[in-house]
Formats: sequence, structure tokens, C-alpha cells
Amino acid sequence: MKEKVLGVLGGVGPMATVYFADLVVRMTEAETDQDHISMVILNHPTIPDRTAYILDHSKPNPVPVMVEDARRLEADGCDYIVIPCNTAHYFYDEIQRNVRVPILNILEETVRACQETVPNLKTIGVLATDGTIQSHAYQNIIERHGLTCIVPEPGDQASLMTIIYEQVKAGRPVDLFEFHRIIGEMKKRGCDAVILGCTELSIIHRDANLRRPDVVDSMECLARSSILACGKQLRRG
Amino acid sequence: MKEKVLGVLGGVGPMATVYFADLVVRMTEAETDQDHISMVILNHPTIPDRTAYILDHSKPNPVPVMVEDARRLEADGCDYIVIPCNTAHYFYDEIQRNVRVPILNILEETVRACQETVPNLKTIGVLATDGTIQSHAYQNIIERHGLTCIVPEPGDQASLMTIIYEQVKAGRPVDLFEFHRIIGEMKKRGCDAVILGCTELSIIHRDANLRRPDVVDSMECLARSSILACGKQLRRG
Repeated sequence: MKEKVLGVLGGVGPMATVYFADLVVRMTEAETDQDHISMVILNHPTIPDRTAYILDHSKPNPVPVMVEDARRLEADGCDYIVIPCNTAHYFYDEIQRNVRVPILNILEETVRACQETVPNLKTIGVLATDGTIQSHAYQNIIERHGLTCIVPEPGDQASLMTIIYEQVKAGRPVDLFEFHRIIGEMKKRGCDAVILGCTELSIIHRDANLRRPDVVDSMECLARSSILACGKQLRRG
Repeated sequence: MKEKVLGVLGGVGPMATVYFADLVVRMTEAETDQDHISMVILNHPTIPDRTAYILDHSKPNPVPVMVEDARRLEADGCDYIVIPCNTAHYFYDEIQRNVRVPILNILEETVRACQETVPNLKTIGVLATDGTIQSHAYQNIIERHGLTCIVPEPGDQASLMTIIYEQVKAGRPVDLFEFHRIIGEMKKRGCDAVILGCTELSIIHRDANLRRPDVVDSMECLARSSILACGKQLRRG
């Protein structure tokens, strides 16, 4: 069988992109270099900010650059494309329309993972950027599966945006207490699972070494789906 | 000024490639996604093993694939190419002859960094693969600078190869005691600086959180040179 190549449409953000690639390598069952997945990674951080455009269409539109990058990955022989940024999936249909190569959808993979791993799942909480929340992307998928979706109250949502933009993306220390408090608040409001639906939150999840079965990290779900799609095995343990 | 693009000829190995990209992102002074360096990363782990070919030319030759990847990076508009693998620099001249884009040489950058940061430098120890050691790549550069190069005794060299191939590349726990013992042995033999001249050793260096001014990590040196070449600033602190 011809080896599959994974295309990573990245840079949105750059830290999340390299963490995604790192996760794919760590989560692949491999004894030698040659057992790993081939990847072409475009780390293109100058792509205009996604949330800024979703909230205000007079801001620079990130879609033309993302479509161009998807076409480069297709021309480079990639068999699958991933975009390690939840917010960018607002533009998923528009990007997918421009390439024949399938784009794995981080939101779909994450909701499916919740269903597979969380028992008695009825209500899912979603932590994400304003762009993702206001586009109702997660809400639509979750409700299509017959489940209930809860998003943070406005004050907590503003606090999450501070964590994502002014702490993680800016390379500054993260207010972990606040991050954990917001997860706790979602649990108190009845969430059976809480999705980390922004790849900057996945970075906190890694650094804080927070392991709970009811906290489902979208980046890990995308890495897992990518490994399996490319015909590799998941590392055990 | 047109934004510079860094091409990463990677996959040799995959873990080192993603760690290199991670270091570039972490070491760049940036407040937003858009402040980071654009990178095109080819993570191509099926490139035949470099040390195997250097030691036995009847083994598969990694050069044709590496030249092809370098040309793809050039065609993709990269301004600089890096290869985050010391051993692969055995083929540096042959790859550089096939592209006009300059390839930053990890060995040259590392020896220069030793000279800039280690006071009263006379003797440098090099920890690297059999391929790198037997090709005399570091020895030639170090001696050209009027310095003395020391490499591990055969038993320690065999132990290093076990650490690189059977522990780091295989994703198994690393014998940190043995790694530190070998560094100590090089110091005892009179090295003013010890170069970690294999990017798998850079991964140990990261995980072990080993910070000594006389241990110079080739991967960090290459990341630093890449950031400066692309016109960005190093993150302070």
C-alpha cells in the first residue's frame, strides 16, 4: 500500500500547529523513524485572525490564503488535510469545496470521540473562541447528534478569550486557576463532558498535565483520527 | 520587506523535526500569531537511515529523497532551508549543490555558538551518532577553528547509539544516568564545552531540563540562527 501523507494547514496558531505535529508523532506506534507518518506542514502564521473576521467581516478575510494553502497541500500529494484550529472550521465548507482531498473536521472528530468515550453522555460543554461559539459550529453538530450543548456565561467567555489571546498566543504565563474554575463551572452546570474546542486550550491541557476522562481535547481527537486515517496504529498506553 | 519563509527538510527523525519547529516558535519574540516565522515543514520519516548508509554504502542511499525534498522547499518559495539532523549533514554539500537557497549548516552554527558563549574555549567534546563521528564532520570544523575535538571512547559511543536508536527514536524511557555519566566523562577528559551533536540528544536535553552553559545543544543553535536569518527577534529570557 502506498504510504499516506498528511497535510497540515497550520500557523493558526503556530504553537498549536507544532503541538499537533508533536502529538501525531508521540501517539503513533513506532519503533524507528521510518514507522512514522509523512507530513507536509505549512506553518503560515500571517493568515489573518479567524475570530476577528468572523465577528467583523470588514476585517481581513483569512479564506483566500487558507484555500491557497489547501491547494498547495493537495498539489504536494497529501491524502488528507487537517487544520489544527477549531475557529478556522467556520470556513470548512468553503475550503473543502476547493480541494478534492478530504479535510478531517476537528469538530466532528471531537464530538464523535465524546460519544465513544464518555458514558451516559447527554450534555456537552464547549470552551472555544468567540468566533467558534458565535458561529454555532459546535452547537449545530452536538444538537444534530441529539445532545445538549452548553457554552460559558459571557463573563467566563471573556475570561477564556483573555487566556487564549493575551496569555497562550502571547507566550505569557496562563492563569491556570481561572482555567480550572471555568471547567468546574461547566461541570456544575451539568456537563457530562467538556470539550477543549480551541487548540490554544489544548496547549494548556498539555502543560497543566490535566487528565480527566470528562475533559475532551479537540487536538488529541484530531491527532488520533489523523493517525488512523493514514493507516498507522495508536501507541499503546 | 517581504516576509522570509523557512523550509525544514525534516523527518530525520520526526520527533526531532517537531521539536525543532517547537523551539523556533518558543524562541521567537512574538505577541500574536502573525509575529511568527512562516515555515514549510516536510516531515518525511521514510528517508533511509543516514548512519546506516554512511557506515555501509550498500544500504539505501538517503540523498536522492533529500535532494528532492530540498527542491520542493525551494519551489515552495523558502528563503532558507534547515535540516534538523546532524548526521544528515554528511550529505550537506551534495544537497546544497542542488538548490540555490542557502542551507543553514547545523554543525557550523553550533561550533560558532560554542565560540561565542563558552569562555576560554580550547577543547570541545562531541556527542553524536556513529555516522557523524566517523565522517569527521565536527572534528574537521572544530580543528579548522584552531580548537581540539574529543569524541567518546568506543564503549561510551556504543552506549550513546543505544540511547539514540533504542531509547529516543523507539519512544522508550531514556537512561538519563548513563547520558549524564557520558557528559561527565567528556568533562573529565578536559572538554570546555560538550556539543549535543545529534537532535535525538536535544530531545533528552529538553526532557531532562538540563541547563549548563558548557553543554551546547545543536538544535537550539540551529533554531536561534534560523530566527535571526528570517529577520525575527529572539524572545528575551
